[in-house]
Amino acid sequence: MSVAAEAIDGLRAAGATVATAESLTGGLVCATLVTVPGASAVVRGGVVAYAADLKTELLGVDADLIDRVGTVDAGVASSMAQGVRERLGATYGLSTTGVAGPGPNEGKPAGTVHVAVAGPRGVETALLELHGDRESIRTGTVDALLSLLVARLGEESRSDRG
Amino acid sequence: MSVAAEAIDGLRAAGATVATAESLTGGLVCATLVTVPGASAVVRGGVVAYAADLKTELLGVDADLIDRVGTVDAGVASSMAQGVRERLGATYGLSTTGVAGPGPNEGKPAGTVHVAVAGPRGVETALLELHGDRESIRTGTVDALLSLLVARLGEESRSDRG
Repeated sequence: MSVAAEAIDGLRAAGATVATAESLTGGLVCATLVTVPGASAVVRGGVVAYAADLKTELLGVDADLIDRVGTVDAGVASSMAQGVRERLGATYGLSTTGVAGPGPNEGKPAGTVHVAVAGPRGVETALLELHGDRESIRTGTVDALLSLLVARLGEESRSDRG
Repeated sequence: MSVAAEAIDGLRAAGATVATAESLTGGLVCATLVTVPGASAVVRGGVVAYAADLKTELLGVDADLIDRVGTVDAGVASSMAQGVRERLGATYGLSTTGVAGPGPNEGKPAGTVHVAVAGPRGVETALLELHGDRESIRTGTVDALLSLLVARLGEESRSDRG
């Protein structure tokens, strides 16, 4: 089973929904989730905030934070995930922000990526350092983020039973 | 050159930007555009309004229209494209709404898809009747929509020179 199918299964089992806030992946996280038949029961939708100002306008990321640290940052990823979770009314919010390449951006090398999962019990962020071309950095980001969601759903389900 | 690369080239040449409003494609239009290096100069971002209520909340589609005709409709596609163009501040707004399958939805067979391009000179919509599985219906939708944008950019560039 693909990690996307595992994520959709886990969300259905939990009676939960999901929304995405994407920067470097440009919509690929949400597009990967909806490849799974039955996704419409749990996928609310998402925002692609490719331009920095849209991270503020559409997701509520603090513009001062972006001015201070740039967009390739764990705090920005966290704020994007929480923002999309709240604004789109989903149980879980997922986010990606980082450098797809080919060159560096904001002084960080291609493959530097922050992802976040926001849920009822708080936000978890992860820093990825990926290698490869734009496509493999993007697909690597999608896989890592959906794996994080699957792990989180597993933990919360075990803890509910415990 | 891929149609996505042609679209990015055409937008750069026109000094224009683009934003996407996606339903059945779930983010694949925007994700396809950002595969092209240099896309960040012209791609503002997008909204994936997979759930019907988000088409109203995030894109301003009239809820009464959706109640009356459903979401698989040329007027809904048109309103999504105009909404994302205005709300994300882009020169062009692109939209997709339709039935990815496997089964029919809202009484319409899988492969029934409406796409729209909204720009400075108005909105153009097209009805696609695609065959195949979910993946080929989605990629067929992306190709058709980006081809429509490329044609539109060509027309408007010729007309500007004329």
